[in-house]
Amino acid sequence: MEEIRSKDNALVKELVKLGSSRKYRREEGRFLLEGARLCGDAVKNGVVPQIGLLTEKAMERYPQAREILACCRRGILISDGVAQKLSDTQSPQGVFCVCEIPPQSLTLSPTGRYLAMCSLQDPGNVGTILRTAEALGIDGIVATADCPDFYSPKVLRAAMGGVLRMPFTLVQDGLEAVDTLRAAGLRVYAAALSDTAVEITRLSLGAGCAMAIGNEGNGLPPQVVERCDAAAIIPMAGGAESLNAATAAALCIWEMVRR
Amino acid sequence: MEEIRSKDNALVKELVKLGSSRKYRREEGRFLLEGARLCGDAVKNGVVPQIGLLTEKAMERYPQAREILACCRRGILISDGVAQKLSDTQSPQGVFCVCEIPPQSLTLSPTGRYLAMCSLQDPGNVGTILRTAEALGIDGIVATADCPDFYSPKVLRAAMGGVLRMPFTLVQDGLEAVDTLRAAGLRVYAAALSDTAVEITRLSLGAGCAMAIGNEGNGLPPQVVERCDAAAIIPMAGGAESLNAATAAALCIWEMVRR
Repeated sequence: MEEIRSKDNALVKELVKLGSSRKYRREEGRFLLEGARLCGDAVKNGVVPQIGLLTEKAMERYPQAREILACCRRGILISDGVAQKLSDTQSPQGVFCVCEIPPQSLTLSPTGRYLAMCSLQDPGNVGTILRTAEALGIDGIVATADCPDFYSPKVLRAAMGGVLRMPFTLVQDGLEAVDTLRAAGLRVYAAALSDTAVEITRLSLGAGCAMAIGNEGNGLPPQVVERCDAAAIIPMAGGAESLNAATAAALCIWEMVRR
Repeated sequence: MEEIRSKDNALVKELVKLGSSRKYRREEGRFLLEGARLCGDAVKNGVVPQIGLLTEKAMERYPQAREILACCRRGILISDGVAQKLSDTQSPQGVFCVCEIPPQSLTLSPTGRYLAMCSLQDPGNVGTILRTAEALGIDGIVATADCPDFYSPKVLRAAMGGVLRMPFTLVQDGLEAVDTLRAAGLRVYAAALSDTAVEITRLSLGAGCAMAIGNEGNGLPPQVVERCDAAAIIPMAGGAESLNAATAAALCIWEMVRR
């Protein structure tokens, strides 16, 4: 099997860039996936990675290591030092795959349930929301282009595979997100803190609707809220601070799927 | 004003230990709170810190800095190096307070709503759950002693002040948590993935109930689930992984307070 032991190897440098640069990922049309679980799930779901990179320790430790390697077009044994260089974590598992970015795949249905993510900032939040969206079973996500890249290491990790399984599409901004959803015949609600917002449990959030959520610090821009069918608020207790963005999104998603 | 510029200062070493050691916090009966927002909110809520430590930059940058200092029994100007040494973050704001650990303050009411945290592992999850519990307005938390210490820097930060405002009590283990809640006349439901669990929306989760949630990897021990009135499951979509522990807890809390 091919081996790379030097951190100065040209491919290693390329893959580090793939992990750190959104622009480079777009140009190359591929991304770096890390972790035994994530890589194992990807190949189980039919992904054929261009390259699989594993350490000797990972080959011994993870039962799925051989299956991952068998599914990759090219397999490379890497040293612990190279794994550390490629990794986004402090204690890397030593399992990496280079995968093609699939074409965007969201088809909106007028009876579906969708989430619009507008100008979120934190990759951990975005990943957690993708994980929740998949687990609770909504039909897709519309995200503005200024959200953290779904194929960045932090989003991929927090999403626990949700990036690879959740249909999504990117749009320019919040207004385009709302217009796209409404054009598909969906009711669109803005998650907002405004005084005129309706308590979320008072809205009919079943099939054929979407919730738009905004930036962690600033929420949705007023013009986006106005473009929605109504603004929804999660009622909170008196002296309370606020909800974490991923928690607020989870409650919005839950209210769309709750039976 | 008193000044500390050396990282080798005896008080600095003591405060570093206060940040890192649960045992030391218990012995000393005090903890280290970090951040302009957290320290500012604490003094606004009537906390009288033993010591306030601020950098010159923080004094200029944060409007609440002088109010914090005015409320502390002892104020110390610290260097950026000392702030870095005391901080749990990469870019410290340079605002710290040493506060007394208040006595545990939970009185269970038979019409209240409570959460039992059993053997959680991740301080970020515990903090986020405390933040959510406060924001959504439940009445208190019962936590097992093996959960991350609520007064650790990571829990304090993720809870956004929730640790200082949310009534809680510690118990030995999950069985004691359930027994304590049931003895107060509360119905106790186990958040579980077991086949016999009832969908969470089918249970009557209003006033007079508690939800018990378990460890991120292993959930609740079977004997704890058995001791509860019923097991509740959050219905999930087909191929999905699972929910993040803080997200699952948020949905459990929401179902208790939802109107």
